[in-house]
Amino acid sequence: MNDSSTARMYDLCATEDRRFSPFCWRTRLAFAHKGVPLETIATPFTAVPEIDPGTKRTVPTIEVDNSLITDSWEIAKWLDTRYPDAPPLIGTGPQESLTYFVQEFVNTTVHLGVVTTVIADLHEHLEPADQAYFRKSREARFKKSLEEIQAGREDRITDLRRSLHPVRALVREHEFLGGDAPCYADYIVFGALQWARVTSDFPVTEPQDEVTIWRNRVAALYNGLGDSAPHYY
Amino acid sequence: MNDSSTARMYDLCATEDRRFSPFCWRTRLAFAHKGVPLETIATPFTAVPEIDPGTKRTVPTIEVDNSLITDSWEIAKWLDTRYPDAPPLIGTGPQESLTYFVQEFVNTTVHLGVVTTVIADLHEHLEPADQAYFRKSREARFKKSLEEIQAGREDRITDLRRSLHPVRALVREHEFLGGDAPCYADYIVFGALQWARVTSDFPVTEPQDEVTIWRNRVAALYNGLGDSAPHYY
Repeated sequence: MNDSSTARMYDLCATEDRRFSPFCWRTRLAFAHKGVPLETIATPFTAVPEIDPGTKRTVPTIEVDNSLITDSWEIAKWLDTRYPDAPPLIGTGPQESLTYFVQEFVNTTVHLGVVTTVIADLHEHLEPADQAYFRKSREARFKKSLEEIQAGREDRITDLRRSLHPVRALVREHEFLGGDAPCYADYIVFGALQWARVTSDFPVTEPQDEVTIWRNRVAALYNGLGDSAPHYY
Repeated sequence: MNDSSTARMYDLCATEDRRFSPFCWRTRLAFAHKGVPLETIATPFTAVPEIDPGTKRTVPTIEVDNSLITDSWEIAKWLDTRYPDAPPLIGTGPQESLTYFVQEFVNTTVHLGVVTTVIADLHEHLEPADQAYFRKSREARFKKSLEEIQAGREDRITDLRRSLHPVRALVREHEFLGGDAPCYADYIVFGALQWARVTSDFPVTEPQDEVTIWRNRVAALYNGLGDSAPHYY
């Protein structure tokens, strides 16, 4: 347990220090949004059970104030409570519930689209011990090899790009999903696109797509936090 | 032009005074949300061009304060401006932009799912003149007969129900899409489901689905405004 005053986040990592977890990206941006420092602890898949042995912690888990908080949504809620004077991430009332709507849309439709587009490429970036774990667990889940899951992505990508229509329509009208300023919904969608660009050169969104232009805007926030990670496009 | 003080809405109608337009339902509930009376003017498809001859008005169009306002989103924004002391429908900042996200999700994914599920049944409810217009315009758009568009809905319905996951997940956590109280996002999603239940006995959502339970909650608001329309389930 870390007893310094700076929060630390267990963050999934691949080779070349590629941080790819969409959920961890939400949390990194959420801390930056609040202006709160966050250190990260590079954590391979196979080290996740060691975060808090005997429990079922997932990433992101943060260590802060001598305790652990798991789950990106819980962490964002905690940040809003702990730092009420900084701009809200999720807020309360309709903003909270509608942000939850965006989260559930991304966690299902968008994440399924991304994972089936980059899963074999992501595997290539993992350390050998993680590769074995990742292949076994994901192939059991999808009942196919990683290569079979990813095959045909050139045909499926149209569906994924079309599913991003609500984001595209919104950023034609507003700078950010939060309107004039970013909010947690921006970081939720950004995390999904960051996951793709950090692990694969296959473009989930095309350069001229308004979604990409907005993504670049989010990646540039907080001194280019999103762009500071190794990425392909 | 109506110069009484009560707003009036041109509202698509079918036989048995079935009011089925999902966009008009948004507006009816939006007025009720603000506690503002609204009269409706039953308007067949083929009478829409007569609302404001020479222009391209669509429904909903409202007559109020001796002028016309068209488009459900514009009307909701106008209501928020005109009645600022009543609870906001769309509000400002993140609530506004996230509501727009929900609207764009519904206008594309959900509406496409609903229309391809009920389009031939809806046609059966129209007056003969509207039937001819509706068949010709929709068959040109889909490049198929109405019956061909609707065929196979038993197989496709799983996709539509699955696409409602963000709504389902949200109403497991909150009473309404707006949290503890309804907001315009509730009326957007409700309109899509109301369109289906007013025109077809084919259940877009199943009775035990949390989405249906929430829909019933919205239909019961404002003295059962939604339930007051003829409906199948």
